[in-house]
Amino acid sequence: MTDESQAGFSTLSDLEEAASTKTDKSAWAYIQGGAGEEWTLKANRDAFHRRTLRPRVLVDVENLEFGTTLLGTKVSAPFYVSPTASHGLVHQDAEAATARAGSKANILASFSTLSSISMEDIAKAAPTGPRWFQLYLQPEFSTTKSLVERAEKANCKAIILTVDMPVAGTRDKENQAGSPLASSIVLGNGREVVRPLRNPIVDHAHIRKEASNTWDVIDRVLEITRLPLVLKGILTREDARRAAEHGAKGVVVSNHGGRQLDRAPASLDALPEVVKEVGSEVEVYFDGGIRRGSDIVMALALGARAVGLGRLVFWALAAGGEAGVSRLLSLLKADLATVMALTGRRTLSEIDNSLVDAAR
Amino acid sequence: MTDESQAGFSTLSDLEEAASTKTDKSAWAYIQGGAGEEWTLKANRDAFHRRTLRPRVLVDVENLEFGTTLLGTKVSAPFYVSPTASHGLVHQDAEAATARAGSKANILASFSTLSSISMEDIAKAAPTGPRWFQLYLQPEFSTTKSLVERAEKANCKAIILTVDMPVAGTRDKENQAGSPLASSIVLGNGREVVRPLRNPIVDHAHIRKEASNTWDVIDRVLEITRLPLVLKGILTREDARRAAEHGAKGVVVSNHGGRQLDRAPASLDALPEVVKEVGSEVEVYFDGGIRRGSDIVMALALGARAVGLGRLVFWALAAGGEAGVSRLLSLLKADLATVMALTGRRTLSEIDNSLVDAAR
Amino acid sequence: MTDESQAGFSTLSDLEEAASTKTDKSAWAYIQGGAGEEWTLKANRDAFHRRTLRPRVLVDVENLEFGTTLLGTKVSAPFYVSPTASHGLVHQDAEAATARAGSKANILASFSTLSSISMEDIAKAAPTGPRWFQLYLQPEFSTTKSLVERAEKANCKAIILTVDMPVAGTRDKENQAGSPLASSIVLGNGREVVRPLRNPIVDHAHIRKEASNTWDVIDRVLEITRLPLVLKGILTREDARRAAEHGAKGVVVSNHGGRQLDRAPASLDALPEVVKEVGSEVEVYFDGGIRRGSDIVMALALGARAVGLGRLVFWALAAGGEAGVSRLLSLLKADLATVMALTGRRTLSEIDNSLVDAAR
Amino acid sequence: MTDESQAGFSTLSDLEEAASTKTDKSAWAYIQGGAGEEWTLKANRDAFHRRTLRPRVLVDVENLEFGTTLLGTKVSAPFYVSPTASHGLVHQDAEAATARAGSKANILASFSTLSSISMEDIAKAAPTGPRWFQLYLQPEFSTTKSLVERAEKANCKAIILTVDMPVAGTRDKENQAGSPLASSIVLGNGREVVRPLRNPIVDHAHIRKEASNTWDVIDRVLEITRLPLVLKGILTREDARRAAEHGAKGVVVSNHGGRQLDRAPASLDALPEVVKEVGSEVEVYFDGGIRRGSDIVMALALGARAVGLGRLVFWALAAGGEAGVSRLLSLLKADLATVMALTGRRTLSEIDNSLVDAAR
Repeated sequence: MTDESQAGFSTLSDLEEAASTKTDKSAWAYIQGGAGEEWTLKANRDAFHRRTLRPRVLVDVENLEFGTTLLGTKVSAPFYVSPTASHGLVHQDAEAATARAGSKANILASFSTLSSISMEDIAKAAPTGPRWFQLYLQPEFSTTKSLVERAEKANCKAIILTVDMPVAGTRDKENQAGSPLASSIVLGNGREVVRPLRNPIVDHAHIRKEASNTWDVIDRVLEITRLPLVLKGILTREDARRAAEHGAKGVVVSNHGGRQLDRAPASLDALPEVVKEVGSEVEVYFDGGIRRGSDIVMALALGARAVGLGRLVFWALAAGGEAGVSRLLSLLKADLATVMALTGRRTLSEIDNSLVDAAR
Repeated sequence: MTDESQAGFSTLSDLEEAASTKTDKSAWAYIQGGAGEEWTLKANRDAFHRRTLRPRVLVDVENLEFGTTLLGTKVSAPFYVSPTASHGLVHQDAEAATARAGSKANILASFSTLSSISMEDIAKAAPTGPRWFQLYLQPEFSTTKSLVERAEKANCKAIILTVDMPVAGTRDKENQAGSPLASSIVLGNGREVVRPLRNPIVDHAHIRKEASNTWDVIDRVLEITRLPLVLKGILTREDARRAAEHGAKGVVVSNHGGRQLDRAPASLDALPEVVKEVGSEVEVYFDGGIRRGSDIVMALALGARAVGLGRLVFWALAAGGEAGVSRLLSLLKADLATVMALTGRRTLSEIDNSLVDAAR
Repeated sequence: MTDESQAGFSTLSDLEEAASTKTDKSAWAYIQGGAGEEWTLKANRDAFHRRTLRPRVLVDVENLEFGTTLLGTKVSAPFYVSPTASHGLVHQDAEAATARAGSKANILASFSTLSSISMEDIAKAAPTGPRWFQLYLQPEFSTTKSLVERAEKANCKAIILTVDMPVAGTRDKENQAGSPLASSIVLGNGREVVRPLRNPIVDHAHIRKEASNTWDVIDRVLEITRLPLVLKGILTREDARRAAEHGAKGVVVSNHGGRQLDRAPASLDALPEVVKEVGSEVEVYFDGGIRRGSDIVMALALGARAVGLGRLVFWALAAGGEAGVSRLLSLLKADLATVMALTGRRTLSEIDNSLVDAAR
Repeated sequence: MTDESQAGFSTLSDLEEAASTKTDKSAWAYIQGGAGEEWTLKANRDAFHRRTLRPRVLVDVENLEFGTTLLGTKVSAPFYVSPTASHGLVHQDAEAATARAGSKANILASFSTLSSISMEDIAKAAPTGPRWFQLYLQPEFSTTKSLVERAEKANCKAIILTVDMPVAGTRDKENQAGSPLASSIVLGNGREVVRPLRNPIVDHAHIRKEASNTWDVIDRVLEITRLPLVLKGILTREDARRAAEHGAKGVVVSNHGGRQLDRAPASLDALPEVVKEVGSEVEVYFDGGIRRGSDIVMALALGARAVGLGRLVFWALAAGGEAGVSRLLSLLKADLATVMALTGRRTLSEIDNSLVDAAR
C-alpha cells in the first residue's frame, strides 16, 4: 500500500486548503473555476444542503458491503475518478499517480482525451486497475476512431463520451488577458488531438465542425468499438431517453462541474428525472459537488449507481501525488462506511429513496 | 473595426471593476445607485438566480443565427443599448462613442431625451446605425412635439416613451447634501428640456404638470409622429393591455433599473405576465439586470424579443469609450453564441419557454 | 416652520448613522435592541422584503391627497409618532421637541406613560397638536385612573392601552452587568408610576399584580374615560375579535418593535389576519419596521389605517431635536408622495390590496 | 443557594463568549464541533428560525406553574441536563459541579457512560438530586449489565440508552493530525468502559461488535433493570414506533447535537412526526439547539415533554463551574416564565400546538 502519511493532508476538511498552497495560481484558478458567474458551480453544492437523510437505528451494521460492479467491472466502492483534463497541471506524476492510487484501491479511474500523459503510459503505470476512457469527438472522425481503438488496446473497459461540450463554456478567469495556462497545457494523447473551441467567432456565429454532431454520431461510435458507451453531460429526461434509444449503456448526470453552461441545474436536482426515465434500462452515474460520504449516499439514494470525483481528486493529487489520492480514497471509504452505519444501511441496495427527504 | 484592445477590460467579469476605477465618485454613485433601499435593484439580479436553463445536447450547432428585427429594423443580435441619461458623465465622447460602437456592430442603440449631446450630434457620429429615441414627456406639449419631430429628422426608427417617471424616485445618494452631480449635468437636447421632478413639494403634495398625463397622451403622441411607439416601464398585465389598446407597437418590461419605485418587482418576474397578456400583439422588450449571454437567453425564453443594456454600457463606456462599448458587444455576442450552443438552440425561435425552469 | 437645516441629517439613508454618533452608548443599545436573539426585530424588516408593489402607470398624479382622520382627528398624513418611553434619553428637549415637531406638521404624536417629561409639560409645549396618551396598567387601579384623567385634561384625543407587556421581555443588553440605564431613567409622569417588571422572580414563577389583568380590565378602563380606546400589541385574529367585542375603537398590530416576545411574528405578517377579522369594525393601526414611504404604502395596502414610527423618531430626535423630527416628517411625506405617484395612487383609498404581491 | 455572582457571565447572550475564553482550544473545538460539514449542527438552530409563536394577551399570568414530572420524577422545570461526555474537559469539578447545581435547582441531570468522574462520585456530590444514567452499549454485555446495576445503586431514576452511535460520526477537527484530545480523556466509570469506534477500518468495512445490536438488545436491557428506559437518538416515526413496541417509556428526538450523522434533519423538524406517532404512549423528549426560553416553549408546543441542554451546560460549567450552571438554570427559568407570560400560557398544558406557526 501507498504510504498515506505522505498525503499532505489528514482529513476531508483540510484537503482543499492543503491543495491550494501547493498549486500554481493559474492552475488553481483553472481547477476551481466555473463558467459565467459560477452560479451552477455553487448550485451543485447547495442542492445537497436542501436535502436530509432519514437515519434508522438499531440495525446490525457490524459488517458493511459497498463493493459493486460498474458496467460489469468489479470495484471496491460506488465512486470513481471522473475524467478531468491535464492532471499534470498539479503534479509531475500526472495521471500515472492517479492511476496507481486507483488501481491499488480497486477504484475505477477514468481518463480524459486531454490527459497530460498518453493513455498507453497510464496503462503502463497501473496495468490491472479498472479504467475507462473519456472521449471528446474530434473534427475528423478518423481521429476519433484512432482514439477509441487505442483505448481498447490500453485495456479500457468502457468509453465515456462527453456530449455537453460542442463549444467550451465562457470561463472568464481562463480568458483574462495574460493567462498563460491554455498555451502551456500538454496533451499526452498526441498532436492531432484538438481541444474544444473557446469563444466562438462572433461575426459569423460559427462554431467548429465537431459542434455539428447529432445523435447519429452515437451510432457511428458504436460501430467502431465493442466497449460499452456512457454519455456524460445529460441533464434532462428527454436526452436520457434518446441516449438509451441509441444504445448507450450508461449516462452521467453532470453539468461538467459548473464549467460549461452557467445556469444549468445542479446535477443533484437533475438526477431524479433521469433516473425515473431510464434508471431501469441503463446505469445512471452522477457527478457534481461530491465532497463526503453523506453526498455519496444521497446521490445513491436518488438513484445513482456510482458517483464521480472531479475536483476532489485534483486536490488530493496536488496535495500529495499518489499518496494524496490514496488517502482521499481511504477517507471516502471510511466516511461512506460511517454514513451507512449511521443510517442503518448495510448494503448499497438498502440505500434507497426512502433515505432522502427535502430539508424543511 | 474598433481596436478592442483599447477597451480597458478583457472579459465580462472584470468590466465593472475596470469602470469603477476610471469614474468620478459621484458619477459612479449615480450610475450604480437605485431608489430607496435598493431592494428592487438587487431583486433584478436575484430573479435570474431563481431560474435555470434546461440544456439539450447533440444538436447541430455548428452555425447559429441570432440576427433579428426590432419593429422592422434589422439588427445583428437580440440586445440593444437602453436609453440612459448623460453618457458624458463617464466619457468625454459621450453618446457619440456609444453610437459609433453600436453602429459598427449593427446593434440597436437608443438615446435619452437627457443625452449629454444633442440627438443631431449623435446622428452625425453614426449616421447609419439603427437608432431609437427615448422621450420624457415635457411640461409643455409643444416641447414634447419638438423633440419628436427632431427625432424623426435625426433618423430614429422608433420612439420609446418612458411611462414610469411622473416624478423621480427617491435616490438618497443623489439627494445627500453636497452632491454636486445634479447641477453639473449637461442636457444636449436644449435648454427647454426639463428633467423629471425630484422630491415633490410636500406641503401641497403637488407634483409637476407632466405628472398629470394619462393614457390619452399616447393618442396625442401618436398624432404627431409616424414612428412606432414603445412604452417603457410596464410591469403589469393591466398596463400592458392598455398599451396595446392605445396603439403602442411595443412595451419594455422594466423597473428603470431599480431607480424609480423601490419594491417594484424584478423585471424578470414581471415579464411572463406581460408576455402572456400582449405577447402575440406587440413586441415585448425587457431590461433589468442583464449581465451575460445566459441572462439574454433566459429573458428571451420567457418571451422577450430583445433585451436592453443599461449599466453594462455605462461601464464599458467608462472603461474604454467607443472601444469599450465595442468590446462589450463582441463579448456578449460570443457569450450568447456559447449559451445557444450549450443549450442546443440554433435560432432565436428555438429559445422558447421549454428552456427555462424554476431553480429548486 | 422649524429650520430643517439643523436636522443633523439630510436623507432617510443617513439618519440612523447620524443618530448613532450623537447618542450615548447605553442609550443607543437600549433604543436599537430587541428581546432574546432579536429574531423578531429582524423579522419586522424582512417581512417587507418578501412583498412587492405592483405599480400602475399613466395615472394623473399631479395632485395627491394623503391627509386622513385617525379616530376622528384630522392629520396631514397616515403615519404617527409611536408611544416610546423616555425621549430624554437622546435629547434634552425630550418629548417637548417631538410634540412641537408633530404639531407643526399636523402629525399625530402619542406619548408614553413612561415619558421623560409629564404629559402636562408635553401639552404646554404643543397645545394644539393632535395627541394620544399611551397607558401602562399600574399595580393599583387608582393610579391607572389618575393617569387617564390627567390625559383627558391634557387634551389627549385617545388612549392607547398597551396589552403586550404583562412583564418586560428578556433584553440581555439592558440586563448585562453594569448597565446604568435602568436606574437613570426619569419618569416624568410622577413617582407613583411603575415600569413593567423585568425578569420575573424565578423560584416562585411569580409576576406582578398588574400581570393578572384580563379582558375585564378593558371594561374598567372604558368606565373611567370618554376617550376612544386603542389596544396596542395585538397579533392574532382571536385577540382582535375580543378587542372589538370589548369596545376598543382601534387596535395596533405590533410586536413592540421586537422588544417583547422574541419569535413573535413580524407585524406585517400578522396584519392581514387582523384586518380580515376586524377591519370593518375598528381602525387597525400598525407598527414594526417602518423606514420609508414604500413601507407606509405597503402596510396601508394590507389594511392599516396609519402606521407608527418608533425608532425613526428616536433617531431623528437624537440627530437634531425638534429640527430632526421635523425633517423626518417632511422626508416621509415627500417619499410617501413619490411612492403614491409611482404606483399611480392619488388618494389613500386607492392604496388597496391589489397593490401588494408576494415577492417571488 | 450557590453564589451566582461567581458564574462568570450575566445573561444568556454573553454565556458562549465567556466560556470560550476560559476553555482550552482543543476542548473548545471538541465541544463546539459537529460531524461532517456541520450542516446538521447549523440546521438545529435554523429550525427554530423557521417558526413563530402566536402570543395571546390579557391572560392572567400573575402566577405561573412550570414544574412537571419526567417519568414520575418531580422537577422544577421542563428542561434537563443532557448526558454529555467528559465534563472534566472544561472544569476541574467536572460532573460533581453539574450535579450539585442541578440538585439545588431541582432540575433533572443525566450523566454519560463517559463521564469524567464515576457515577458513584456524582451521586456522592448530590445525593438527592434527580438523576438519570446514559448508557452506551459495550462490546461485552456483561460490562453493559454492570453499568446498569451500578446506576441503579447510584440512585439513578431512569436509563437513557443512546441508539444513534453504532460508530462515531466523522468529526474532522477531532481527527486532524496532532489533536491530543482523544488520548487525554479520562473515563470515570472504569477501565473496562469503551468509547464508540471512530473511523471504521476501511478495507474490511468492519465496525465493532456493539454495532451489531438490533432492537432485541432493548429486551435484554429491560431484563436486567427495573428502571424505565429512554431511547435517545430517534428521528423517524418508524423507529419511534419500534421503541414503543419494545417497551421504552420514553424517546429523545435528537441528532446528537449534530455530532453523528451530518445531513440528519434538524431535531425540531423531526419532533412533530415522532410526537404524532407515539406521543400518546411514551414521553417524548427533545434536544438540539435549545438556547432560550422561547426555544423551550416552541419544542414543548410541538409536543416535547421536556428539553435537554447540551452545549449550554458545557458553556456554563466552563464559565463558572457550579455557580455557572446554577446561573444558567436560573436564567432559563426566568426566561421561560417571561415567554409563558408573554404568550399568555399559565401552565405547561396550555403550551399546545396552537402556539406555533410557520414563519412566513
